[in-house]
Amino acid sequence: MVETLRVGVAGLGTVGAALIAQIGKQREAIAARCGRRIEVVAVSARSRNKNRGVDLKKMKWFSDPVELAGFDGIDVFVELMGGSGDPAKTAVEYALASGKSVVTANKALLAKHGFKLAQLAEKAGVALNYEAAVGAAIPVIKTLREGLAGNSINRVYGILNGTCNYILTRMEQEGLSYADCLADAQRLGYAEADPTFDVEGYDTAQKLALLASLAFGTKVDEGAIYVEGISSIAPADLAAADELGYRIKLLGVAVRTGKGIEQRVHPTMVRKDSSIAQVMGVTNAVTIDAEGINPITLVGPGAGGAATASAVLSDIADVARGLKAPPFGRPTGKLVAVQKAPMQRHEGGYYIRLEARDKPGTAATIATRLAEQEISLESIVQRHPKGEVPKSKNGSVPVILITYATSEDAVRKALAAVGRDKVISGRPQVIRIEKN
Amino acid sequence: MVETLRVGVAGLGTVGAALIAQIGKQREAIAARCGRRIEVVAVSARSRNKNRGVDLKKMKWFSDPVELAGFDGIDVFVELMGGSGDPAKTAVEYALASGKSVVTANKALLAKHGFKLAQLAEKAGVALNYEAAVGAAIPVIKTLREGLAGNSINRVYGILNGTCNYILTRMEQEGLSYADCLADAQRLGYAEADPTFDVEGYDTAQKLALLASLAFGTKVDEGAIYVEGISSIAPADLAAADELGYRIKLLGVAVRTGKGIEQRVHPTMVRKDSSIAQVMGVTNAVTIDAEGINPITLVGPGAGGAATASAVLSDIADVARGLKAPPFGRPTGKLVAVQKAPMQRHEGGYYIRLEARDKPGTAATIATRLAEQEISLESIVQRHPKGEVPKSKNGSVPVILITYATSEDAVRKALAAVGRDKVISGRPQVIRIEKN
Repeated sequence: MVETLRVGVAGLGTVGAALIAQIGKQREAIAARCGRRIEVVAVSARSRNKNRGVDLKKMKWFSDPVELAGFDGIDVFVELMGGSGDPAKTAVEYALASGKSVVTANKALLAKHGFKLAQLAEKAGVALNYEAAVGAAIPVIKTLREGLAGNSINRVYGILNGTCNYILTRMEQEGLSYADCLADAQRLGYAEADPTFDVEGYDTAQKLALLASLAFGTKVDEGAIYVEGISSIAPADLAAADELGYRIKLLGVAVRTGKGIEQRVHPTMVRKDSSIAQVMGVTNAVTIDAEGINPITLVGPGAGGAATASAVLSDIADVARGLKAPPFGRPTGKLVAVQKAPMQRHEGGYYIRLEARDKPGTAATIATRLAEQEISLESIVQRHPKGEVPKSKNGSVPVILITYATSEDAVRKALAAVGRDKVISGRPQVIRIEKN
Repeated sequence: MVETLRVGVAGLGTVGAALIAQIGKQREAIAARCGRRIEVVAVSARSRNKNRGVDLKKMKWFSDPVELAGFDGIDVFVELMGGSGDPAKTAVEYALASGKSVVTANKALLAKHGFKLAQLAEKAGVALNYEAAVGAAIPVIKTLREGLAGNSINRVYGILNGTCNYILTRMEQEGLSYADCLADAQRLGYAEADPTFDVEGYDTAQKLALLASLAFGTKVDEGAIYVEGISSIAPADLAAADELGYRIKLLGVAVRTGKGIEQRVHPTMVRKDSSIAQVMGVTNAVTIDAEGINPITLVGPGAGGAATASAVLSDIADVARGLKAPPFGRPTGKLVAVQKAPMQRHEGGYYIRLEARDKPGTAATIATRLAEQEISLESIVQRHPKGEVPKSKNGSVPVILITYATSEDAVRKALAAVGRDKVISGRPQVIRIEKN
């Protein structure tokens, strides 16, 4: 048997502790599968004396993760500290520069510095693996990097944030408000005290940046993504979606268009019969549309200590076996820069909900303004969902429009004109429809 | 750049032709991803002059696939002829013995001779890849072999045959008979003129044998699988399932039990809210239950020229990149023989449909016989599904029972006793329930 693969783990939160426990428990099975043992020989964390439920006695302790990264007693540096800045960044750079393979679950670091880190890994001839950074235990990185190597990918999209999907699922199934569901998510530990990063779509954007790079050979660039969160979604939208045969999901979408790669994160109407629409609660899912074949959807736990540790361990096992693919599926010299697609040019169907003044001529005015922008309507509903009697708030009635494919520019112009006509109150709700 | 990877393809049906077309179309993208070119340099098929829509002029022609397998102008032998016997078997053996990596989509060959072929591959130090053999483009082989390398897997189950799922979907959604749906499937090319191999579960069993070996480290052995097909499923079963919150799917299930690895293929009741229940039509899906984490489900096209060719090409790309894992995830010396689990010992819930004599005391007799075997009932329904008035056929009324977990032996004994009591007509329908 080949020599033991010596692992150093920086960061001993729930994932780090789960990883050490799993490696201990699966010792023999891993050795059988990889043809060599995997052993955690050194660790680093902020506090040495915290009880993490795992035995660290045989492991060398480093109070400085960067020092661990440079320690020549390890072959693989596992970074589980998180954050796009230091110490994670310097530690990973130092590990790669000193010829160690790196395994990380750090989406923020990769979304910001992934391209440069991939260059470092390439130069050193080592692996930079990050299966856990997107969809935790769902093998989406491996699938895009290796599994569909011969396919031209047209689109990749997914539910990449469990917090948002939990909130939208509760809102849909129980008719609750966004605020109530968010409070529950916070109580259950699914959302942070400051939920901005999750609910406003930034977490999804970081993950999407990685998927887009793997799918399309772009330089990972989270700045190139249009981002919109779920905080404006109302129970009325979920009820209307249900009635029209849709569900609302926060999707990250990267798609090849005639104008380049479009990357966007926003609440999205998806048809109820699609695989992605079935994904409920904190579960994550990614759908891959490759040229000439029906979509492939991968569904599973997108977070949690054990699920994340499972993906980290698969990455370590690949290093143990000597399986090494370029971090973003292609040599870094082949990766190309991507522009931020201006959303005005986005083309697709739209869901629009307006609070219209309840007086004659309002519907005609709205329809005329849409027609002026050459927007065709698939449906227009002017009654309250679920057949209730319209509740007139300040003399207004909800109007739900579904458009056929049009441009975002046209929709924005039409709604601005409707606003000037003073036939609606409040801000129009606009949700993009994603075809499946 | 490293030298071109030279590929020989034996078998030029829809998959072979799609593969050659895809390699031609994706030439540059593949070279960028793999760091080397992939070129089909030699082919073999039965008829040389058939028009396959691809240009074979630059390729060396072999009328004997075994000769192609031994040809020293190729690095990889791609076997797309099918069948567990010759020429596929001898050709693959010859290619491996002569130091060539082999890529095949041939589930029959691997289910029967996979262990011996893996030994040959191991001895020669070459790859034996077969992603296309199960679920076509769904990356399930790679996921089990590499992606969950550090996980202990408790169960793997899936919809592995599109023909059966198409038939069950049509029966469920349109209330049609098995015979009508089979005829439609044959007309649409989803089923063979002799459908036995698909509808009686043998195709599913071959695929399950491969998944079980990867998941549990068993020597692949299709003979160790209990197999039951879908031909006895009646519209009444699908209607009852619907009413009780289930769907009926033909599943292949491999599960770790206290008595060893149980492998079985049979119609199965799955809860409507499970990921696997959402899979409709010819689509395939596999769910993996690993220790301590929520299930992972992979969904996608399970057949078709382009989808199969896509998986074959990924396997070739792995060879081009030098990624090589043991064919069944572990060195062959670590794989262990598996016993056929006797189904009498199977434990789980059961759906039972009886045609009961429409006279006083019948229900009491049935309930008593079940109680004698210590079977607890979750529900008993004695009215016709969908609330219709019971149609008394020869004075009988359908009785639907759902049991809590019990043993198959107990169910069989109870039903035998009910039969002797002469309170039912016809054969009882028994369908196992799979928990999710």
